[in-house]
Amino acid sequence: PLIAVLPGDGIGPEVTEQARRVLDTLNLELTYEEAPVGGAAYYSDGHPLPERTLDVARRADALLFGAVGDPRCDALERQFRPEQAILGLRKELELFANLRPARLFPGLEDASALKPEVAGAIDMVIVRELNGDVYFGEKGFRKTAAGRREGYDVMSYDEDEVARIARVGFETAKVRSGKLCSVDKANVLETSQLWRDVVIEVSAEFPEVELTHMYVDNAAMQLVRNPGQFDVIVTGNLFGDILSDQASMCAGSIGMLPSAALNGSGKGLYEPIHGSAPDIAGQGKANPCATILSAAMLLRHSLGIEEAADRIEAAVTAALVSGARTPDLGGTLTTSEMGDAVLKALG
Amino acid sequence: PLIAVLPGDGIGPEVTEQARRVLDTLNLELTYEEAPVGGAAYYSDGHPLPERTLDVARRADALLFGAVGDPRCDALERQFRPEQAILGLRKELELFANLRPARLFPGLEDASALKPEVAGAIDMVIVRELNGDVYFGEKGFRKTAAGRREGYDVMSYDEDEVARIARVGFETAKVRSGKLCSVDKANVLETSQLWRDVVIEVSAEFPEVELTHMYVDNAAMQLVRNPGQFDVIVTGNLFGDILSDQASMCAGSIGMLPSAALNGSGKGLYEPIHGSAPDIAGQGKANPCATILSAAMLLRHSLGIEEAADRIEAAVTAALVSGARTPDLGGTLTTSEMGDAVLKALG
Ligand SMILES: CC(C)[C@H](C(=O)O)[C@@H](O)C(=O)O
Ligand SMILES: CC(C)[C@H](C(=O)O)[C@@H](O)C(=O)O
Repeated sequence: PLIAVLPGDGIGPEVTEQARRVLDTLNLELTYEEAPVGGAAYYSDGHPLPERTLDVARRADALLFGAVGDPRCDALERQFRPEQAILGLRKELELFANLRPARLFPGLEDASALKPEVAGAIDMVIVRELNGDVYFGEKGFRKTAAGRREGYDVMSYDEDEVARIARVGFETAKVRSGKLCSVDKANVLETSQLWRDVVIEVSAEFPEVELTHMYVDNAAMQLVRNPGQFDVIVTGNLFGDILSDQASMCAGSIGMLPSAALNGSGKGLYEPIHGSAPDIAGQGKANPCATILSAAMLLRHSLGIEEAADRIEAAVTAALVSGARTPDLGGTLTTSEMGDAVLKALG
Repeated sequence: PLIAVLPGDGIGPEVTEQARRVLDTLNLELTYEEAPVGGAAYYSDGHPLPERTLDVARRADALLFGAVGDPRCDALERQFRPEQAILGLRKELELFANLRPARLFPGLEDASALKPEVAGAIDMVIVRELNGDVYFGEKGFRKTAAGRREGYDVMSYDEDEVARIARVGFETAKVRSGKLCSVDKANVLETSQLWRDVVIEVSAEFPEVELTHMYVDNAAMQLVRNPGQFDVIVTGNLFGDILSDQASMCAGSIGMLPSAALNGSGKGLYEPIHGSAPDIAGQGKANPCATILSAAMLLRHSLGIEEAADRIEAAVTAALVSGARTPDLGGTLTTSEMGDAVLKALG
C-alpha cells in the first residue's frame, strides 16, 4: 500500500517522523511518498495544496498528515492560506467522515482541567461531517440595501449528505455501546431541522442503536458537566469543529488524540488533532503520540490491519504507564525520546 | 418605571415570583404588568408571543423574563414553538446586546466539574450579538439540482451590526480589566472575516483596551483548559450561544447566572440563563438566584439604580455564605426558602 506523507508546518515534520519510525518497525510492506502541504507548500510551490501534492494524495491508499498553519501566512488572501490545504484535501478526496475519539489515557488524570472523576469517565467518539455545512456553501462579501459592507456564508445540508454521515454515526455506535447522540440546533436552524429529520429516518436501519438528540448549546454544557454520558456523537461540520476540540481538551490530552477523515471506500487522511504549534516548532518539544495513534487508525480504517493497530495503541499506553512524558504531559522527554519509548514498548 | 413581567413556562413562574419579592422590598416605586409568553401563551392566546404581550413589552422600561420551553410544543410548526417568543422579543425590541457574566460564586467551588483552582479563576462577561447571524438570515427548505431535500440558513453580518456590538464589548472591557477577546471563525467564514475587520476598525476608538482574536474551536478548548485567561469575550449570535452556555457550566452554577439583553437606549430583557426545566416545574426545587440576580442587572442597566443592584448581589452572596443552598447546589432549600434567605440577607 502507498502512504502519502504530508508533514506540513510547524511541528508537523517532527511528529510525522516519529509515526514513520513506528510504522517502519512493523514490516508491513508500505511504500511512502512525501509531499509538501500548507505554509511549507506555499513557500516551496506557491500554493498550500500544489497539484503534485494532490496527485500523490489521489494515488495513495491513505494519507498521514502532520499539521498546517503558519503565522507568516496570516495576511495572505484566503486561497493561499495553509488551512485551505486541509479543507481542499477533505473536499477533493470526499473525506466526509471525521472520526475523533476523545478519551483520558491512564496516568494522565492530572492533565485535564476537569476533576479526575469527571475526566476519567471520558471515552467517546465524535463523528463530524466534513464536506458540507457553512464551510462549503456560497460565501463572500456584498453590499446591503443601505450600502454597507456585509459578509455572508450559506449553511446547508441535503438529505444524502446527512444520511451518509448518520450511517457512519450509527455504525460507530453499533460496535461501541449502542448509544448515538445527534447534535444540532433544530430550534433555530432549518439546516438542523432537515438534519434531525433525516437522522431519525436513517435510525430505522439501526434498530439496535438508541438515538437521542441534543441542542449544540446544551451539548457544550454537558461536555463539561458530565462528559461520561456520551459514547458516540454525530454532528455537522461547524458544530463538530467546536465540540470535538472542546471534548479533546476535557480529556486533557490534546497531544495524545488522533483523528481520521474517511471517504466512502475506506481511504482516509489521518492527523493529530493538535495544530502546527509554531511556538515550539523545531525544538523537539512536541508530543508525537497523537500522530503515532493516527498511524494506528490508518492501519485499522484504511488498510484493515487491525492487529498492528492494536499493537501500536497498546505500545503508546505502555509507554505512558512506564512514565514516558513529553513536556505537555509534565515530563521532560524530547519528541524522538518519546518515539523511542513507544518503539521500545512495541518490542 | 414599568416592568413587564413575563414568567413563561416550567419553573419560570416560580423563579420570577422570588425576584418580584426581592424587588418589592426595595421600595423603588416600580409598577408591574404581567403577560404570558412561550408555551403558556400558546395555550392561553394561541401564539407564543401574543400581541398583548408585545404591547406590554414595548411600553415597559425593562422586562423581567422567566423561561420558555415546553415539551408538549415540540411537534408544533416552528412559528408556534415557545423559543420563537424569546427570538421575537429580541428582534422586535432590537435587544442586540446580550451580556452574560460567568463567575464562580464563593462557596460553590465544588459545584463545577472543573478543578477548584481552574474554576475559581472564572470571572468573565460574554458579550453576544443577538439580532443577526444565522439566526435571522433567510432560511428554509428547497430541492437540490438532483431533486433532494435540502435545509439552508444564511449566516451574515454587516458592518453596522458588528460595530455596535463591538462597542458594547469594548465599553464592557474598559470598566473591567481592559482586555477584550473577539471570537470568530475567520479562517473559514467570510462573515467572520468581516467581523474581524470591523472589530479591528472599532478598536481604534478604544486605545486603552487590548484586543485579541481567537477562533471559536480554540475558544471552546481554552474555556476548559484555562478559563481564567478571559475577561470579556465578544462574539456573534451562534458562537455566543454555544460558548456562553459552556462558560456558565464551567463556573458550575447554571442556577446562579443572570443575563441581560439590551437595546441601544438602555431598555433590556433580563432572564436567568437556565431554561424552563419542565422536569422539576411546580415542585419548589428551582434555584431562584439567577432570576434574582437578573433583577439586579435590570436595576443597574435599565434603571440606573446601581446601589440597589449592588445590595441584591451582596445579599445573594451573603445568603450563599450563610449556607443557603437549593438542591442544584447540593442543599435542601425550596425555591421560596432560598428567596427568604436572600430577603433576610437584604436586611
Ligand atoms: C484549520 C481549520 C480550517 C480546521 C477546521 O475548522 O475544520 C480545523 O480547525 C480542524 O478542526 O481540522
Ligand atoms: C431558546 C434558544 C432559541 C435560545 C438561543 O439559541 O438563543 C437559547 O439557547 C438562548 O441562548 O437564549
